[in-house]
Amino acid sequence: MPITLDQLNTADRVSFVTALSSIYEASPWVAERACAARPFATVADLHAAMQAAVAGAAEAEQLALIRAHPELASKVARAGNLAAESRREQGSLGLDRLSDEEFELFTRSNAKYRERFGFPFIICVRRHTRNSILVSFARRLAGSRDSEYGIALEEIGYIARLRLSESVDGPGKPKVYGRLSTHVLDIMHGEPAAGVSLVLKECDASAEGLLKETVTNANGRTDEPLLGGAPLRIGTYEIGFRVGDYFAAKGIAVRYPRFLDYVPVRFAIAEPEGHYHVPLLVSPWSYSTYRGS
Amino acid sequence: MPITLDQLNTADRVSFVTALSSIYEASPWVAERACAARPFATVADLHAAMQAAVAGAAEAEQLALIRAHPELASKVARAGNLAAESRREQGSLGLDRLSDEEFELFTRSNAKYRERFGFPFIICVRRHTRNSILVSFARRLAGSRDSEYGIALEEIGYIARLRLSESVDGPGKPKVYGRLSTHVLDIMHGEPAAGVSLVLKECDASAEGLLKETVTNANGRTDEPLLGGAPLRIGTYEIGFRVGDYFAAKGIAVRYPRFLDYVPVRFAIAEPEGHYHVPLLVSPWSYSTYRGS
Amino acid sequence: MPITLDQLNTADRVSFVTALSSIYEASPWVAERACAARPFATVADLHAAMQAAVAGAAEAEQLALIRAHPELASKVARAGNLAAESRREQGSLGLDRLSDEEFELFTRSNAKYRERFGFPFIICVRRHTRNSILVSFARRLAGSRDSEYGIALEEIGYIARLRLSESVDGPGKPKVYGRLSTHVLDIMHGEPAAGVSLVLKECDASAEGLLKETVTNANGRTDEPLLGGAPLRIGTYEIGFRVGDYFAAKGIAVRYPRFLDYVPVRFAIAEPEGHYHVPLLVSPWSYSTYRGS
Amino acid sequence: MPITLDQLNTADRVSFVTALSSIYEASPWVAERACAARPFATVADLHAAMQAAVAGAAEAEQLALIRAHPELASKVARAGNLAAESRREQGSLGLDRLSDEEFELFTRSNAKYRERFGFPFIICVRRHTRNSILVSFARRLAGSRDSEYGIALEEIGYIARLRLSESVDGPGKPKVYGRLSTHVLDIMHGEPAAGVSLVLKECDASAEGLLKETVTNANGRTDEPLLGGAPLRIGTYEIGFRVGDYFAAKGIAVRYPRFLDYVPVRFAIAEPEGHYHVPLLVSPWSYSTYRGS
Repeated sequence: MPITLDQLNTADRVSFVTALSSIYEASPWVAERACAARPFATVADLHAAMQAAVAGAAEAEQLALIRAHPELASKVARAGNLAAESRREQGSLGLDRLSDEEFELFTRSNAKYRERFGFPFIICVRRHTRNSILVSFARRLAGSRDSEYGIALEEIGYIARLRLSESVDGPGKPKVYGRLSTHVLDIMHGEPAAGVSLVLKECDASAEGLLKETVTNANGRTDEPLLGGAPLRIGTYEIGFRVGDYFAAKGIAVRYPRFLDYVPVRFAIAEPEGHYHVPLLVSPWSYSTYRGS
Repeated sequence: MPITLDQLNTADRVSFVTALSSIYEASPWVAERACAARPFATVADLHAAMQAAVAGAAEAEQLALIRAHPELASKVARAGNLAAESRREQGSLGLDRLSDEEFELFTRSNAKYRERFGFPFIICVRRHTRNSILVSFARRLAGSRDSEYGIALEEIGYIARLRLSESVDGPGKPKVYGRLSTHVLDIMHGEPAAGVSLVLKECDASAEGLLKETVTNANGRTDEPLLGGAPLRIGTYEIGFRVGDYFAAKGIAVRYPRFLDYVPVRFAIAEPEGHYHVPLLVSPWSYSTYRGS
Repeated sequence: MPITLDQLNTADRVSFVTALSSIYEASPWVAERACAARPFATVADLHAAMQAAVAGAAEAEQLALIRAHPELASKVARAGNLAAESRREQGSLGLDRLSDEEFELFTRSNAKYRERFGFPFIICVRRHTRNSILVSFARRLAGSRDSEYGIALEEIGYIARLRLSESVDGPGKPKVYGRLSTHVLDIMHGEPAAGVSLVLKECDASAEGLLKETVTNANGRTDEPLLGGAPLRIGTYEIGFRVGDYFAAKGIAVRYPRFLDYVPVRFAIAEPEGHYHVPLLVSPWSYSTYRGS
Repeated sequence: MPITLDQLNTADRVSFVTALSSIYEASPWVAERACAARPFATVADLHAAMQAAVAGAAEAEQLALIRAHPELASKVARAGNLAAESRREQGSLGLDRLSDEEFELFTRSNAKYRERFGFPFIICVRRHTRNSILVSFARRLAGSRDSEYGIALEEIGYIARLRLSESVDGPGKPKVYGRLSTHVLDIMHGEPAAGVSLVLKECDASAEGLLKETVTNANGRTDEPLLGGAPLRIGTYEIGFRVGDYFAAKGIAVRYPRFLDYVPVRFAIAEPEGHYHVPLLVSPWSYSTYRGS
């Protein structure tokens, strides 16, 4: 059960530090130093104070913090020996259930990264798809030590912000969840397209994973957002709209096979905390899509 | 080398029939009867006269004509023993190079069809993709004998029209070739999008086959039509436009991964002799497509 | 002050009839007969009961009800002698302040209509622009007596529904107000277009009347609907978007004079109780619009 | 009758100069100096040589050339005493038939301009609408003497290029004519919209002038370009498409008054020698337009 910001503001120092012990991996000093800045008006302020403590720490402390993070998809993770928080985060992508081949790839990349920079590759897993982690890994291996050092602290900030947002209740929570929504408009009839079947897939180089299958309601929208209640994972997606069946059900005769049947809309998400609205304006012979709002 | 319509109009009866002997499978009587209608003003008139001869023939003659056609992907075809015309037609889809499994499927379907209707499954192969043949096979197996009889004669008409169009030179050739073209318009800059890489794929249930890879020219078009010089094969296609690279090359910075990168436009072709113009109007955040002209 | 449906349900018969005396012009019998159907669960039910009373009345009664309505733009209206309800309704369009020429046109049309059909031209003024009244007048003069008789009762129903909705409070109010909204999306930048000046005009054959001038907010929408809180008047409108200034303010250089500057979107409203959402998707070189939702 | 480039290349010096005497107002020295650069491979080369002669002339000569141009809408012009070339050019806009009020405005602006800069306001009239001349006048009155001096020579270059292009036949004519075209695509039916009535108007601050009224052909295009065979006049235009009647004629029932009836597309032309393609993609409830190619 989350603790409240009020409780944190009024707790004694030891309780404060204990309550926040799992926000920064094995580094109680972060909470200790942030404690002095109490009281916090918002959860976002608390997060800012903790990040400020990290930014102001000595390099040795920062390095220790970075090094306290487990390697992605490490042997430890595979054997099930991760700290609870890290396990939940890495497990969300199936990083603890990799094939032997994938495990080898991660192991080699981890080793190369650590050898090059002297600390493990850190990334806020919950903001990424498996594919975007692989792409980041490849790109970041080519970075400089300074830039990677900065990125590591930034990613630790993302991780902490998510953890805080889920373990502390109170006003001014930082925005950590994004949203993906759609809307289908039938521009032949000038009305929302109700009853359009659609799928949401994650696309990556090797395979496509089905994330959701649903149907538009009377407003041409989906009852639930396509994605929400979590950071949107950086990556490439496809919404596939079965517009052929929709128009056929409305009695529109189009010579078989229909010019438009399954309409794939492929796009990438780059802002895990953003709102992506991806509508479809469609007739039996045309469609448009765009990032809406 | 094609014969000319003039030559056919003035040839003696035997030469006329000989010259057209391969238009209708093993059925010289079609040319014999059409001969009486000479002279023909156009190649299309010649085709119409031959189809009229077929339509006016006795049922036994029609049945013999239908049965003179080889089975699709038959043992004969596989062994390389088809008549030259049929071999070229079936070979165009790789129907003479099927896997054992596919060969089995065709063999079973052929047997079932012949058993049900008393004649082989006839389809003008050059107007179809392999997938659309499979779909047609499944659908036509569920048809009535009367309807399939009519369809067989209609398909024989398509086959003859194509053969005629390629073996006879002269005015008024029937339209047997279609065309697929595209055009990319950059609606951020109000000008044709030059240098956009694109691919054309055939999509079917089991796999995707790359048909073409090209780049738009200064007019935002491709130097050659995407498809042309042949009937368009009925089936589902995808044009994939690499718009992310295009905008990046123009210096437009979009947060990585880019909202739009590879834009797939999936559509079906239903009219092998038609012109399909499938343009893309695109900005870094939106696109439209439609069947144009 | 509105009376409540509860009060109407429990009032004695005389109070009930008195409270509803101005809903149907000079025809207390409508309320009297509807009274028997009490209690009403919703205001819409009350309206339905009153319309049922009208529909079930003798022709002489119906005719008397129709004839109790003042002529549009009559001498009485011009002299200011209308019943309060009718005055407010006709005044809303300026029908009591017509030029002499317009007054003559209305007078002539009224006389012709009455002569042809034996009753005055009835129309629910608040659902129309002045232009759409003139168009309806011309069209309905060409109708049959039976059809006009039916339309008169239907229009009386619209008038009563609006009056009821404004004089009775309670659950299940009939929908009598419409809404016109817009949304401007910048498809060059993939975000709402904030700060776009726009105007809403009523367009008719002779002139254009400015109804509203406003600016889009951070969401690309207007703080208030463009029209609302009343029936939408049937007629033709134009939203004019000053997109040239918007893009210039964002630093987008386009050769002068700009390809797009003031973008007029002209459309008609046919359903006074409907929601019309008319968005604009725009780049410096292209735009789309549609009836959205 | 135009002279040919060949004739000019081989003529004696005096004939050459005489033949080109009306290209630069009262300044035979331009042709004289360009003569030395013969032979010219293209008409564009001839023009370049003459402009080079102007650019290389002494300031006194340039000034004399500038001052040799009549004032726009001057008393001389009004009285019909202009040189034939200038009269045809100014007459094309009706500048010789101004109202007294407009004449006053031009007279005042001319006087102010000449007083400020010491030479008359020069503009290539055939590249402008009357409105864009007024706008240019106002803007250029606020310019510097240097910049106006440069613009005057540039406009003289435009004038000469047009005159040359019309008086000399030969290869490599400079592009002096633009083109405006349209295309209507019915995205409800996936085909060109044939039979759509449309108008082309010039829009300016004070009035709208009808330039053309036509109907789309079977390809959804107009048989002739909307504008062509002349420079496009810089200014604002509107194409109005009667799409309501088009869809009604196809039997599409839309509640009256139709959401879309007359669709105005307003845009500006900034490049007199450019190709402006302004298509309309339309359904009964939506449309898009853009600068195409």
